[in-house]
Amino acid sequence: MSKVAVVMGSTSDMPVMQEAIDILKGFDIDVDVDIVSAHRTPEKLFDFSKNAHINGYSVIIAGAGGAAHLPGMVASMSPLPVIGVPVKSSNSIDGWDSILSILQMPGGVPVATVALNGAKNAGILAAQIIGSADKCVLDKIILYKKGLKQKVIDGAKEVNGK
Amino acid sequence: MSKVAVVMGSTSDMPVMQEAIDILKGFDIDVDVDIVSAHRTPEKLFDFSKNAHINGYSVIIAGAGGAAHLPGMVASMSPLPVIGVPVKSSNSIDGWDSILSILQMPGGVPVATVALNGAKNAGILAAQIIGSADKCVLDKIILYKKGLKQKVIDGAKEVNGK
Amino acid sequence: MSKVAVVMGSTSDMPVMQEAIDILKGFDIDVDVDIVSAHRTPEKLFDFSKNAHINGYSVIIAGAGGAAHLPGMVASMSPLPVIGVPVKSSNSIDGWDSILSILQMPGGVPVATVALNGAKNAGILAAQIIGSADKCVLDKIILYKKGLKQKVIDGAKEVNGK
Amino acid sequence: MSKVAVVMGSTSDMPVMQEAIDILKGFDIDVDVDIVSAHRTPEKLFDFSKNAHINGYSVIIAGAGGAAHLPGMVASMSPLPVIGVPVKSSNSIDGWDSILSILQMPGGVPVATVALNGAKNAGILAAQIIGSADKCVLDKIILYKKGLKQKVIDGAKEVNGK
Amino acid sequence: MSKVAVVMGSTSDMPVMQEAIDILKGFDIDVDVDIVSAHRTPEKLFDFSKNAHINGYSVIIAGAGGAAHLPGMVASMSPLPVIGVPVKSSNSIDGWDSILSILQMPGGVPVATVALNGAKNAGILAAQIIGSADKCVLDKIILYKKGLKQKVIDGAKEVNGK
Amino acid sequence: MSKVAVVMGSTSDMPVMQEAIDILKGFDIDVDVDIVSAHRTPEKLFDFSKNAHINGYSVIIAGAGGAAHLPGMVASMSPLPVIGVPVKSSNSIDGWDSILSILQMPGGVPVATVALNGAKNAGILAAQIIGSADKCVLDKIILYKKGLKQKVIDGAKEVNGK
Amino acid sequence: MSKVAVVMGSTSDMPVMQEAIDILKGFDIDVDVDIVSAHRTPEKLFDFSKNAHINGYSVIIAGAGGAAHLPGMVASMSPLPVIGVPVKSSNSIDGWDSILSILQMPGGVPVATVALNGAKNAGILAAQIIGSADKCVLDKIILYKKGLKQKVIDGAKEVNGK
Amino acid sequence: MSKVAVVMGSTSDMPVMQEAIDILKGFDIDVDVDIVSAHRTPEKLFDFSKNAHINGYSVIIAGAGGAAHLPGMVASMSPLPVIGVPVKSSNSIDGWDSILSILQMPGGVPVATVALNGAKNAGILAAQIIGSADKCVLDKIILYKKGLKQKVIDGAKEVNGK
Repeated sequence: MSKVAVVMGSTSDMPVMQEAIDILKGFDIDVDVDIVSAHRTPEKLFDFSKNAHINGYSVIIAGAGGAAHLPGMVASMSPLPVIGVPVKSSNSIDGWDSILSILQMPGGVPVATVALNGAKNAGILAAQIIGSADKCVLDKIILYKKGLKQKVIDGAKEVNGK
Repeated sequence: MSKVAVVMGSTSDMPVMQEAIDILKGFDIDVDVDIVSAHRTPEKLFDFSKNAHINGYSVIIAGAGGAAHLPGMVASMSPLPVIGVPVKSSNSIDGWDSILSILQMPGGVPVATVALNGAKNAGILAAQIIGSADKCVLDKIILYKKGLKQKVIDGAKEVNGK
Repeated sequence: MSKVAVVMGSTSDMPVMQEAIDILKGFDIDVDVDIVSAHRTPEKLFDFSKNAHINGYSVIIAGAGGAAHLPGMVASMSPLPVIGVPVKSSNSIDGWDSILSILQMPGGVPVATVALNGAKNAGILAAQIIGSADKCVLDKIILYKKGLKQKVIDGAKEVNGK
Repeated sequence: MSKVAVVMGSTSDMPVMQEAIDILKGFDIDVDVDIVSAHRTPEKLFDFSKNAHINGYSVIIAGAGGAAHLPGMVASMSPLPVIGVPVKSSNSIDGWDSILSILQMPGGVPVATVALNGAKNAGILAAQIIGSADKCVLDKIILYKKGLKQKVIDGAKEVNGK
Repeated sequence: MSKVAVVMGSTSDMPVMQEAIDILKGFDIDVDVDIVSAHRTPEKLFDFSKNAHINGYSVIIAGAGGAAHLPGMVASMSPLPVIGVPVKSSNSIDGWDSILSILQMPGGVPVATVALNGAKNAGILAAQIIGSADKCVLDKIILYKKGLKQKVIDGAKEVNGK
Repeated sequence: MSKVAVVMGSTSDMPVMQEAIDILKGFDIDVDVDIVSAHRTPEKLFDFSKNAHINGYSVIIAGAGGAAHLPGMVASMSPLPVIGVPVKSSNSIDGWDSILSILQMPGGVPVATVALNGAKNAGILAAQIIGSADKCVLDKIILYKKGLKQKVIDGAKEVNGK
Repeated sequence: MSKVAVVMGSTSDMPVMQEAIDILKGFDIDVDVDIVSAHRTPEKLFDFSKNAHINGYSVIIAGAGGAAHLPGMVASMSPLPVIGVPVKSSNSIDGWDSILSILQMPGGVPVATVALNGAKNAGILAAQIIGSADKCVLDKIILYKKGLKQKVIDGAKEVNGK
Repeated sequence: MSKVAVVMGSTSDMPVMQEAIDILKGFDIDVDVDIVSAHRTPEKLFDFSKNAHINGYSVIIAGAGGAAHLPGMVASMSPLPVIGVPVKSSNSIDGWDSILSILQMPGGVPVATVALNGAKNAGILAAQIIGSADKCVLDKIILYKKGLKQKVIDGAKEVNGK
């Protein structure tokens, strides 16, 4: 069965990254969570990244803020799809540094970047990646999207009384 | 077998998007290419997006510039993973509009955004997504990364004579 | 009689968009309000946009934040003038994403963009559009502008005692 | 019959603004063109703005670059809808100054802002404003949008051979 | 004797602009204060600007926020030096709109722009302008600068005990 | 008689700063020009700044690019009004660094900042400062503004044939 | 023995700069602290900068906000390595002015710039500079980095229970 | 004797980085040059970074563009001072990504960042770091600064004929 690794640069990223974990659990997808700091635990970064596909992960979600090197460095060492979550941490300049240092990867080493603090979407994207080859997960996503729609329709009723 | 759809808002995006097509062909992955304009052919956008997963695609790559709504609108209607390529088109403000209108999707509807004009990385990411469930493609990506490394090592020799 | 449609991507946009509704009511112009999410209710977006001019609307006001696709997508499917309100929502980067993804529409599909959170001005602009062909509404706008002037003159008196 | 006034701050804005004139002529809408500099001919600005609705105009298009005050100042004195075109002139910082000084109007005095150098869209928007009360012009816009669609479909054929 | 006019677009700018008034009073320079809105009282703007040099003013300080047209429009109609204060008002995008729409004036019509919310410096600059031809005011400025220095030296003592 | 000092950080700023010199000569105002680098000739900066008001200057114009410290450092040591010209030099990031490091002076030490590369306006502003106490120069400015107006009116004739 | 000078433009920078002092004391490196304002005490700036290497300092740390000229001006007069700390002071525009006016120094006069409010890193960098020639300090840095790693590993245990 | 390592992410950075090499050679400081790509040769990055201080280097200069992770990753694994050069490479957004992903390092892991494309200053800074403990190199820097001054003085003569 597919398994997703959620890593982040610091425990302070946990409140943002929790949304990715929650959404994946909601889709009944296995998740492992760890703190891997590109700048403070480079050996752990290496071990994790080089072995993630051997250790049974299908997708990696990596969140970091400021000069956010974690997602790109994981991507440099893993053949798996890596989803990057730019975190608007306290040492970030309105999130611009987090976004640009995750998004602007050089040719050859992509990071699938989501919105600032968009951990929820990172979880959904991971599910979609798994779903692209797993009909059962795909069906759950189709169902999830129907739920989104219904919530908007319910909200609309409150506004226009229809 | 897995198949990737590459769509873009205008034929003028073709020179940028060609890199995604080339890289996928290099990985022996089937690619279909089409022009789908969110703003000028909304019906085609609907047809394409709603049926992509039924029509056998595993991943969608969508490129657009300026107020770039194509990737997000495709993502709103398809359960498949959608990779967005912000194109620095002539009507773009240094690419900032292309990036922000693709990246900053609301919770529930992710777009896997790559670097500005990063179509090559969009192609690699699509292959990685397929590879996350297809050992054969995964091996090709591992090989591709080795090629990247070799090129740097060869370049280093020219610089330091070692 | 002329009628304006005010749509927004989420009920959370309501506090901002209410100003457009209030100003239009102040001009005795009919307003219908609805929640239409480009990303979560694309079918409703289609129905609304394709039929707005048939359903008796003269102008459409659309507000959204972040990667704000609603105004542009409505404009892509309606021949009516569409006024876009960039909302500085919680998932927006200081409003820049909301502004650029509404303003920077490609040639052929304009959105009449107003200031960040400028729903009040969207309401006035809608009235001005109606007033451009309706002498009675035009006179109300002239009167409204006189009111603006008087308020500044009254404020000046407090400051300089004249 | 409806008539549109196209004004700009300098003759150097003419290459950009010509697109607005051309598109309006294509819709058989009468256009008058003039140079009105907010900073160098303030009296002319006053005369023009205060009398535009008396002189038979339905819509005003105003283009300017840098600290672009023309659209906002016209809007301050005319009850008509004013469309602002931010021009990326030689004295502009990548267009940001042009955009912000046109878009960010205070409550009470809207300017309908289009994309940077978006004079073509300004022309279409002016036509849509007229069309919102003139069935004949509305039909032309519906036709124009069909033309946009056809061009994309033709372009798609070249790309995918379908 | 020299006299300075301090004008602003709205009474809400008063808390920021008060600093200019205070500093000028500290230099024993006459100050008149008024609310002049470029967008809501254009006639007052004209009267004020065209007659400021006839009414005995030597320097004009103008503060405004958002699409801040007041300083530039005053400068377009007065031969006097105009100092512009970009105000970070509630409708401003982090102050960028206020700064750019005051600073980026076209060739021929300068505005002497100071820092965001820099009304205090606007007051000092006005005094310096008067001081450039009035030895008595120049001496006060030299004295004022000595005071600035002393305050830093006193602060340093607290820090390093020297 | 009044005299203006024009200083700049490098001979490479000369093409931009020449416009300030030309405009002042056109107003028959004496100008002295010098290269004073804040970073490479700090002693010269001190000598120049501390003595400018003693050496008979009424106004100082200082141009620099990148981390542009010259205008602010001159202002820190001279009681005269200092006009800063942000130069878009080759080592500047689109001019943003030049603008911000000149404009954002702390309370107590103003720099009268003009537009990016706005040396022409720096010259006019210097003349206006002199003119604020010198009726003869004021009259020349009034005349100069009439010339600006005439040029626009002539340009308008070409455009609209009126 | 090596000694570091920590200077800042204002006592209000002290809360940020204290982190540099603390980290250096933690490495048993001598620190002297002083307030030196480039704009208000230029003579002190000169004295300090010209004599720092004679007075026994090995490295200078300079912090300032807004149009932050202190680090660059110290660097212009001292042959020592100067570390600049951009402070996000109250008069700063989100820190952009502080960063750009410290970072973008012209060729010939470098400032070693650290992150916004990054005084802690300035202290570590000063220690690293001393450590590059002092084995004893280098060993302390190696130890410090081990401590960083351990803290992440401890944090990870809390998250994943391993 | 002190030795500096100059590394860069790609041979395409060489034209920019050559200036660092040249300046160091001018100071008679030994330089080794190598291509080390954080994203394509992570093992080489590890080997180089972990052993640089053992291999006799005193300072490391690292240049990279776009999502520039090389300087920060080297700094994460080496106790030596690391100077980062943001390169405005072809895949960079006006250099903002290069700057922010090098500058905004988290607490604990500093990178001494210089101006965009500021390799020359990186070389000088490396020399200053060595000079902070080596009187002979310090003297060369003092001499170099005198040369800078003389060049400005010579340039000034051409401008003002003095």
